[in-house]
Amino acid sequence: MKIVKFGGTSLATGNQVRKVFDIVMSDPERRIVVVSAPGKRYPEDIKVTDLLIACAEHYLRFGEGREQFEAVIGRYASIADDLGLAEEIVNTIHDDLLKRLNGNRKNPQKYMDAVKASGEDNHAKLVAAYFQSQDIEAHYVNPKEAGLWVSDEPGGAQVLSESYDALYKLRDRSGILIFPGFFGYNKADEIVTFSRSGSDITGSILANAVKADLYENFTDVDAVFSVNPTIVNNPKEVHELTYREMRELAYAGFTVLHDEALIPAFRARIPVNIKNTNHPYKPGTRIVYEREHTNGPVNGIASDNGFCSIYIEKYLLNKEVGFGRRLLSILEEFGLSFEHMPSGIDDISVILRQDQIPDHLEKRIVSRIKEDLDADHVMVRHDLSLIMLVGEGMRNNVGTAARASNALAQAEVNIEMINQGSSEVSMMFGVKEKDEKRAVQALYEEFFAGVVV
Amino acid sequence: MKIVKFGGTSLATGNQVRKVFDIVMSDPERRIVVVSAPGKRYPEDIKVTDLLIACAEHYLRFGEGREQFEAVIGRYASIADDLGLAEEIVNTIHDDLLKRLNGNRKNPQKYMDAVKASGEDNHAKLVAAYFQSQDIEAHYVNPKEAGLWVSDEPGGAQVLSESYDALYKLRDRSGILIFPGFFGYNKADEIVTFSRSGSDITGSILANAVKADLYENFTDVDAVFSVNPTIVNNPKEVHELTYREMRELAYAGFTVLHDEALIPAFRARIPVNIKNTNHPYKPGTRIVYEREHTNGPVNGIASDNGFCSIYIEKYLLNKEVGFGRRLLSILEEFGLSFEHMPSGIDDISVILRQDQIPDHLEKRIVSRIKEDLDADHVMVRHDLSLIMLVGEGMRNNVGTAARASNALAQAEVNIEMINQGSSEVSMMFGVKEKDEKRAVQALYEEFFAGVVV
Repeated sequence: MKIVKFGGTSLATGNQVRKVFDIVMSDPERRIVVVSAPGKRYPEDIKVTDLLIACAEHYLRFGEGREQFEAVIGRYASIADDLGLAEEIVNTIHDDLLKRLNGNRKNPQKYMDAVKASGEDNHAKLVAAYFQSQDIEAHYVNPKEAGLWVSDEPGGAQVLSESYDALYKLRDRSGILIFPGFFGYNKADEIVTFSRSGSDITGSILANAVKADLYENFTDVDAVFSVNPTIVNNPKEVHELTYREMRELAYAGFTVLHDEALIPAFRARIPVNIKNTNHPYKPGTRIVYEREHTNGPVNGIASDNGFCSIYIEKYLLNKEVGFGRRLLSILEEFGLSFEHMPSGIDDISVILRQDQIPDHLEKRIVSRIKEDLDADHVMVRHDLSLIMLVGEGMRNNVGTAARASNALAQAEVNIEMINQGSSEVSMMFGVKEKDEKRAVQALYEEFFAGVVV
Repeated sequence: MKIVKFGGTSLATGNQVRKVFDIVMSDPERRIVVVSAPGKRYPEDIKVTDLLIACAEHYLRFGEGREQFEAVIGRYASIADDLGLAEEIVNTIHDDLLKRLNGNRKNPQKYMDAVKASGEDNHAKLVAAYFQSQDIEAHYVNPKEAGLWVSDEPGGAQVLSESYDALYKLRDRSGILIFPGFFGYNKADEIVTFSRSGSDITGSILANAVKADLYENFTDVDAVFSVNPTIVNNPKEVHELTYREMRELAYAGFTVLHDEALIPAFRARIPVNIKNTNHPYKPGTRIVYEREHTNGPVNGIASDNGFCSIYIEKYLLNKEVGFGRRLLSILEEFGLSFEHMPSGIDDISVILRQDQIPDHLEKRIVSRIKEDLDADHVMVRHDLSLIMLVGEGMRNNVGTAARASNALAQAEVNIEMINQGSSEVSMMFGVKEKDEKRAVQALYEEFFAGVVV
């Protein structure tokens, strides 16, 4: 049994819905289909979810929003029309959305969640109607009825553990089940949405719950790239990644799929296949629990900028028990989360995302560290980039650090920081932001370009 | 004005004292001489300090210790005899030691300190007597009378800040001042000793106090080696080191001079010259505040073994504010001090000296971390060595990491950890203990052997 999730662009038009139908019908194992709200049809288009947000905001402010409402219904109507569906489904969607918009506005967050979730919920009804119109046994499944219970955190719901047993029973239902992504119900029967990539989360939860053999995630790319294509032209595709590799890459801005969305699937060790709705015959990228690594030590390169380091120097720091802990306590007080903490003998640095530290706070943090820790010297360095080499094959590869640092030296990139030694599947280099592109290009050349035979 | 300190082997025999006399007399700037207790004359010999400890222990246990007492006095008598000194000085030493041994034993630590300190104190008197016998104006200076006040921590005294002003007045005294190393007086006028290398500390304090131009530290080596000579045969000497380089090297077992002893000199930016009493014409090694670095990026290689790492894996660890701080709190509770803390996305490692963790404690620490931090996986890896490349020239040298990791790869050494990025003058590699020698040899070859023209 496979869970098949389709993203917004895969369901943006009638033509796209037809592709989805063909994909689902081509494999009898594709039994549960998770749908997103209609996405963009062309780059300047507006997603239905964004139309719904505008609509809800208008209602919250003015008590109505005819224009915004029509824009949403217009999207569904055009898809239904294109698919030759009876008017009934559009009326259903019309009435459902109007009911939500005229619902209780006392709690604006809950109100917003209910309106936003209609994007997926109503599209699931429409998609089910299309399957039915093709004489296929298909059923829209409401998450409440199916038992997808979540915590009461609007915009950031967490699945409750009892949901898994309830959802397991979906296995026994007949026909193709069309399940709306992005939301569940709290214990008060109210709609609560997941965080961004919410439909990915729904798919992942269902995959875990029904013990699926595969979770197929259809989007609009053929595969995950080995490196950011805005830095390297036409880079190689990665056809297989482990969960750990995915996590490490996602951390440094590698964002085809939000990695946290995969946790439920990951916990059940269910493989995930990222595929392209427009090219379903292509293999896509499989994310698996473990893989054979025969393609060299590095499987992907990610990079991200906007980091800074706080450098602290204190004579005999090394002998002071508790110094690191006290330093981290201070950062915690300021609400700062840190990424890395390389240390020397008389000095220690903390690397963090610099957008956490507004200018006025920087001075306070510096003087606080200086005073509380009696530091000799405290300094903030800005505009660092972190580059992450990721690959399961790195674990016992003697020369990887040498190859990487050679490539950087030849590109005349000064290494500000190396962090290697905790993760077995990654190696991190800190460089100045101005060197980031050159560094990534050099590393790509070293580990990927040469592999062509 | 120079402070000249002589170590135990430099003062072990009459012949050695004559060398000391010649060294001091050859430079009129050598005005204050800090002396150690007589050291070993040959490898199997026993230092006077160790004889004194045995003596004090015998007195503490049995109320007497004739044999041990005679052994100490014998050492002084033989030096005095060799130098042709009058019997008077040996009598003085005899009476002084007897008085100390018959002193108050209520506080064994204080008693021990008083007896131990007699090694330096009495030798200073003997050396002064020798200078006088050569018709030189020389004076034994007692630390109490000079104002060397210290905290009341037997075996680990810290100099009190008021000492500096008092000791500054030594500048105005005439003649050569012979000052015993290793101890000062607390506010109750009791003798309290410094930690190991205590005579180095005395010299360093005096250098700071009198604002000396140079602190000469005479020992029995020609210079500091660039690498451990038990690992690399006949390695190059280092003729100039900065304080920071010294500190970083000392950390990983580079121990010609105990680095903490230099703090007072360091704070006043007084250069230190390590020289050989037996080859005083050789330049030795200068330790300076800053230096020109024209001899390549790396100035020394140090290594030390006996480290372990505690590896902690937790899914989504990276998103958890406070994780690092809570981890360090647990280690602190167990009284463990950590060296480094490399981190990945979902994992973090802590490197520490493994002799801190007896077997029975290891399990408790692991399960404590697992429970308190809800970690998915905790593992201890034993028998790691840390290798430190140290050099001011590394600061902006693009290729150093590449050269080092290449050298290690060619020697087939797997790098377990790289720590680079806080200190600007060092780069640290973690390797398995079994690979340490091979790794150090390879790094030495890369950074030193090739430099020969």
